[in-house]
Amino acid sequence: MKTSEMKLVVIITEDELEPRLTKEILALGARGYTASRVHGEGWHGARKSEWEGENVRIETIVPEPIANSILAHIADRYLPHYATVVYIQTVSILRVEKFT
Amino acid sequence: MKTSEMKLVVIITEDELEPRLTKEILALGARGYTASRVHGEGWHGARKSEWEGENVRIETIVPEPIANSILAHIADRYLPHYATVVYIQTVSILRVEKFT
Amino acid sequence: MKTSEMKLVVIITEDELEPRLTKEILALGARGYTASRVHGEGWHGARKSEWEGENVRIETIVPEPIANSILAHIADRYLPHYATVVYIQTVSILRVEKFT
Repeated sequence: MKTSEMKLVVIITEDELEPRLTKEILALGARGYTASRVHGEGWHGARKSEWEGENVRIETIVPEPIANSILAHIADRYLPHYATVVYIQTVSILRVEKFT
Repeated sequence: MKTSEMKLVVIITEDELEPRLTKEILALGARGYTASRVHGEGWHGARKSEWEGENVRIETIVPEPIANSILAHIADRYLPHYATVVYIQTVSILRVEKFT
Repeated sequence: MKTSEMKLVVIITEDELEPRLTKEILALGARGYTASRVHGEGWHGARKSEWEGENVRIETIVPEPIANSILAHIADRYLPHYATVVYIQTVSILRVEKFT
């Protein structure tokens, strides 16, 4: 089974940011995303009180340069203003053409 | 703390496939799975219009040969017909006997 | 984009354990966590019959020594008594000071 390596970017942030953030992720070159409702505590951002409510976990699989663009975008527009956690991992995938 | 390495297989696909797919994963040798409701956009498969609705995210932890069997099964039976994303990662686990 | 490596700890266990377990995770040094409702089958622990119901998936990002403390705690207090899966991965994060 031939697999390729890509980057998985996971963003956990305030619920109401989902429509805006997913649009931006697609505009930065992601070919899709998966989102789910989560909840949590801590990792306080600018609006701590809102973090301890409903949040969204968004994941996307992208080539490394797009992962870096998403990271830079999050660092610039989200981390200073919203309770946001972002992390990156390497994943092995089938059908690389789906993600590039 | 003694840990062992295993493969985490994550499959995101159409909601209604969950009962069939999880049965197949167990038949291929997985000892368990975890599933959750997710939603998403893009990564279009054969039935694009259905992808942008409710989806399921299934994860299982298995030895590498079983991960490869699951991957081959997905490539053969799901990727050509359904909106499906699959990826594999390495994880460190406790109690290897639980997964083998 | 400067990133740092940290450990992602994922715990899947019985729903009703969430308040206790997340409190313990924070007491062991985690700065936050994210939780979501999941369901599953298999990976039987002590109370098999309850595993096939509602479960919770808790993830936290911590420095390696804290990941090891969490793992030891789970091995000691949860694995022998509850249906529990725990795994660890390495992730790249922004803003290391958020997690330490």
